Amino acid sequence: MSNISLSNISRPIKAELNQFSDVFNESMKSKVGLVDLVTKYILKQKGKKIRPLMVLLASKVSGEINDRTFRGAVLVELLHTATLVHDDVVDNADQRRGFPSINAIWKNKVAVLMGDYLLSRGLMIAVEGKDFDFLKIMTDTVKRMSEGELLQIQKTRKLDINEETYFKIISDKTASLFETCCEIGARSSTDDPEVHLAMRKYGENLGIAFQIKDDILDYDGTTKLFGKPIGGDIKEKKITLPLICALSRASKTEVQDIKSAIKKGSKKNSVHKVIDFVHQKDGIAYAEKIAAEYATQAKQCIEKFPDGNAKTALISLVDFVLERKR
Amino acid sequence: MSNISLSNISRPIKAELNQFSDVFNESMKSKVGLVDLVTKYILKQKGKKIRPLMVLLASKVSGEINDRTFRGAVLVELLHTATLVHDDVVDNADQRRGFPSINAIWKNKVAVLMGDYLLSRGLMIAVEGKDFDFLKIMTDTVKRMSEGELLQIQKTRKLDINEETYFKIISDKTASLFETCCEIGARSSTDDPEVHLAMRKYGENLGIAFQIKDDILDYDGTTKLFGKPIGGDIKEKKITLPLICALSRASKTEVQDIKSAIKKGSKKNSVHKVIDFVHQKDGIAYAEKIAAEYATQAKQCIEKFPDGNAKTALISLVDFVLERKR
Repeated sequence: MSNISLSNISRPIKAELNQFSDVFNESMKSKVGLVDLVTKYILKQKGKKIRPLMVLLASKVSGEINDRTFRGAVLVELLHTATLVHDDVVDNADQRRGFPSINAIWKNKVAVLMGDYLLSRGLMIAVEGKDFDFLKIMTDTVKRMSEGELLQIQKTRKLDINEETYFKIISDKTASLFETCCEIGARSSTDDPEVHLAMRKYGENLGIAFQIKDDILDYDGTTKLFGKPIGGDIKEKKITLPLICALSRASKTEVQDIKSAIKKGSKKNSVHKVIDFVHQKDGIAYAEKIAAEYATQAKQCIEKFPDGNAKTALISLVDFVLERKR
Repeated sequence: MSNISLSNISRPIKAELNQFSDVFNESMKSKVGLVDLVTKYILKQKGKKIRPLMVLLASKVSGEINDRTFRGAVLVELLHTATLVHDDVVDNADQRRGFPSINAIWKNKVAVLMGDYLLSRGLMIAVEGKDFDFLKIMTDTVKRMSEGELLQIQKTRKLDINEETYFKIISDKTASLFETCCEIGARSSTDDPEVHLAMRKYGENLGIAFQIKDDILDYDGTTKLFGKPIGGDIKEKKITLPLICALSRASKTEVQDIKSAIKKGSKKNSVHKVIDFVHQKDGIAYAEKIAAEYATQAKQCIEKFPDGNAKTALISLVDFVLERKR
């Protein structure tokens, strides 16, 4: 399993992914120089493209990749890019994928407006294709993503969060777009509602596993090579699954002690204290177990699909999400 | 003409405006406590509601107000509110309509996410109504609004702007939504494309007059009672019509002198220097003349519409836009 990489997974649809990139780059063009400048900067960073990959694979496993599939892939990647750019404002982040964030270079102004621009471009692609289903799915996803983030902020303030709320948050803020990618891919290839639902459920489980893994990586210093610095969540007072588990296993005194450390989250010592506490209570092992359960469920959702390289890739994608180091 | 007020103008459709407010308030509800909290705060501030007013009047002058009209009015007001909330981040503003801005209370995080949430709610209303035309118009408007703002930022940096670029910017960032309001209102009442176009042109001219007046108010201390503080545009290095005119009437030395004052825009003396310069060169009188020309064109666009209280209100709305003090 150590050989799983996104480039291996995407091999069976390499040509289609390249075709996607061309359409995607074209879709971002603007007559306004500043827009093009920021856009080129975004394109240079090249993300994982895990979302368009899902659209293409979900389409292929359900039928044949076609024009509507590409439209869907461009749509979700534009939406994802828009939320990344907005997240840069949201998190007050100064790095993204190892590069300085848009807002660190061009200030919040430009980051907010560029996010709005990219979002509108994504919706326009669905409008131009007269694709009412995609529009419905997409606008609902934008709503869930923003509501999920806002619920997290609300809970963050009071340091009051349980597993149920945690899963509600990550389902809305992260898994919703994974669901959408898989459903859109399937819809582009078949009208069978059972297939749409199965792919949607695959995406949901994969998305939840993905976010749990993301939250684990914030604690797991030994394996974190790039990306956001370790302990970033703690600094922002975000309580995620490893910490929720650790707190549930702690005494009242310990809980009080750790919560007061989180409140001082910006200090280095406090961050280390929380990280050590989570390791000591085996919070990471617990979160890894739960992530693995969702991963298994994701695989089960596509059991009935016909064997072939698309199905194999979707299964490898689940393993990749669990094993990734960043 | 001194008696023109929005409450007078909206008298013929007072009941419909109240009905709009109910639907609008309902549309903003969310299960997330923080969303509801921010929403209630926004609703308490009560804006001018000039945009839903346009939708309703454009509908009435073209036929009869109906469910689709209300849907359109809610849609544009949600979009407008979303851009206001995002503008709070964009401008780093700490006041909005005399209240502290969302981001001053809840930080940029919440302002960005709330804007995204409100935008998605607006689009969902169009989706739920299966209203493809509205979706197409709205997404195009979001694109134009963000591109217009971004072009302004691009030009602002270089202090390089002429009348042509100024009109491109305000047409995109402001007039586009006015156009949309009037077109959506007309479309809800009639299928006649000539009516759609006439109302759209009315909105375009009105929107341009509105923005020129807004830019004049930034210089016109004697009449500015509430709203943004005077000189705000200069502090942000925004060069608007009164200043463009004044610069075109100045010597090379004066231009250099004023541009270096704008670069120091955050200092009080520099702001006063620029304001005095614009008054001295009659830049405001020029901008008022141009605004009045657009206002006249707006009125001409609806000349052929049947007489009645809706048409009278639309004409009064043009006068209101020119004469408003804030």
